Amino acid sequence: MPRYDIAVIGTGPGGVSAAITAKIRNKSVLLIGTGMSSKMVKAHAIFNYPGFPGISGQDLANALKAHLDSMEIPITEDRVASIYAMGDYFAIQGGREIYESTTVILSTGVVAGKPLPGEEQLLGRGVSYCATCDAPLYRNKATAVVGYSRSEEAEARFLSEVCSEVLYFPMYRDEPELPESVRVIREAVIAIDEQDGKRRVVTREDAYPVDGVFVLRESISPGQLVPGLELVDGTFIKVDRLMTTSIPGCFACGDVTGQPFQYIKAAGEGNVAALSAVAYLDRK
Amino acid sequence: MPRYDIAVIGTGPGGVSAAITAKIRNKSVLLIGTGMSSKMVKAHAIFNYPGFPGISGQDLANALKAHLDSMEIPITEDRVASIYAMGDYFAIQGGREIYESTTVILSTGVVAGKPLPGEEQLLGRGVSYCATCDAPLYRNKATAVVGYSRSEEAEARFLSEVCSEVLYFPMYRDEPELPESVRVIREAVIAIDEQDGKRRVVTREDAYPVDGVFVLRESISPGQLVPGLELVDGTFIKVDRLMTTSIPGCFACGDVTGQPFQYIKAAGEGNVAALSAVAYLDRK
Repeated sequence: MPRYDIAVIGTGPGGVSAAITAKIRNKSVLLIGTGMSSKMVKAHAIFNYPGFPGISGQDLANALKAHLDSMEIPITEDRVASIYAMGDYFAIQGGREIYESTTVILSTGVVAGKPLPGEEQLLGRGVSYCATCDAPLYRNKATAVVGYSRSEEAEARFLSEVCSEVLYFPMYRDEPELPESVRVIREAVIAIDEQDGKRRVVTREDAYPVDGVFVLRESISPGQLVPGLELVDGTFIKVDRLMTTSIPGCFACGDVTGQPFQYIKAAGEGNVAALSAVAYLDRK
Repeated sequence: MPRYDIAVIGTGPGGVSAAITAKIRNKSVLLIGTGMSSKMVKAHAIFNYPGFPGISGQDLANALKAHLDSMEIPITEDRVASIYAMGDYFAIQGGREIYESTTVILSTGVVAGKPLPGEEQLLGRGVSYCATCDAPLYRNKATAVVGYSRSEEAEARFLSEVCSEVLYFPMYRDEPELPESVRVIREAVIAIDEQDGKRRVVTREDAYPVDGVFVLRESISPGQLVPGLELVDGTFIKVDRLMTTSIPGCFACGDVTGQPFQYIKAAGEGNVAALSAVAYLDRK
């Protein structure tokens, strides 16, 4: 297995900026994300990314992608479920494979909403954040997907090929496009609990017993992603001015480090995080 | 005299970014500099300003200037000599006039080189950083200019119209273009001192007595610019993650806050400094 110098998790402006500077400094770079950040693409117009007055999110994403392409930095399409500090390297558990890197830069964005009641307690005991990783556990069993964005429908589609039953709870307004075998339930999910050996998705109206529940958001909270990481207010990664976190070799940038949530702030922090990772590698 | 909400000192990527975000937040903005940052323009190619792969410093400066223009943010051409915290506002001493602003964002860049021996001791007693401000004191007297960049030649030209004698010590390689009345002395300046009631420019070869000495650099050190500002290593402005300095209402961004010296880092910090200034104004 190759061991990268710097793994960058996230493809928003922070992650892209970090990857670019890391590559310029001749480090081997792994940039992981599900395409270009879908949140960025949604912005109608961005007025304060200096040099691009009034650019749309889509156009800025295209410009950043072209910058990556010009430097031959590929995006590794995967969803990171967890990252473990192994001493002198990090093991990055993706949906498709496990990656190794000497340093990690977290640029996973801000997590929309708080965990559901019961979600964190049942994580790993019937609740999962990664369909690709854990689908084999639920072959021919009943599962539910709580999907926070349209991109999660692909995961539900995949589960429907493996599981005996898939319930899909859309947490957004758009109408899901899913195979008929997936049962869409448009009720507000308020909790996840356990009863009689089954997990249950609890809505305002009812409760649905299944074997496994997949809670799928754009990003998972940094404390769950990297066990042991020191947070601020339980939400943001604690960093200093050099974007250093509480774990040696682990850096962070962008919205995941706290407000303000701004493209150019994230891009600036990505640069600093990359240079701090380079300095860490050079000291080793 | 108008009192601005936010005065931004410096026209590099940090200052431009701060001015753009301040304007978007509907604050009145004063952006002061001598044109677009001349240091930025000199960069041959910049590879890690995300969205502009391999752009030249001149082209990036043009893109930032076009962004300012599109938002109708003018650059006030002036050179700031000092800034005083007056309690609920700041008095900004420029070469042309005094400006007032409720908050200040310092984006003055990194200062090349250390002060000359004697320079700080004689500041205000025969040594000055601003020809436009202090020329009237030396009408029909002898002055010397220690010029660190070609843009200082304009100051020497102006002094030659007022003073009886002007000596010019270029601290750069290019040949100065100056009126014949200005005497160019190409010797390495090593100190400034006092003798028999005169100031003297001391070079490796000789010593030149004059009435006043103007030491003109691209930027002056932040501790001299804003009396009382807390520094790190006597060089950089101490800031936290919100770009707050030790003086309430005074923020900073870019190279003046320390390494890394990078365009995109400065632009990101400018955004944060502006939003912190906006929050400060809104609390008042």
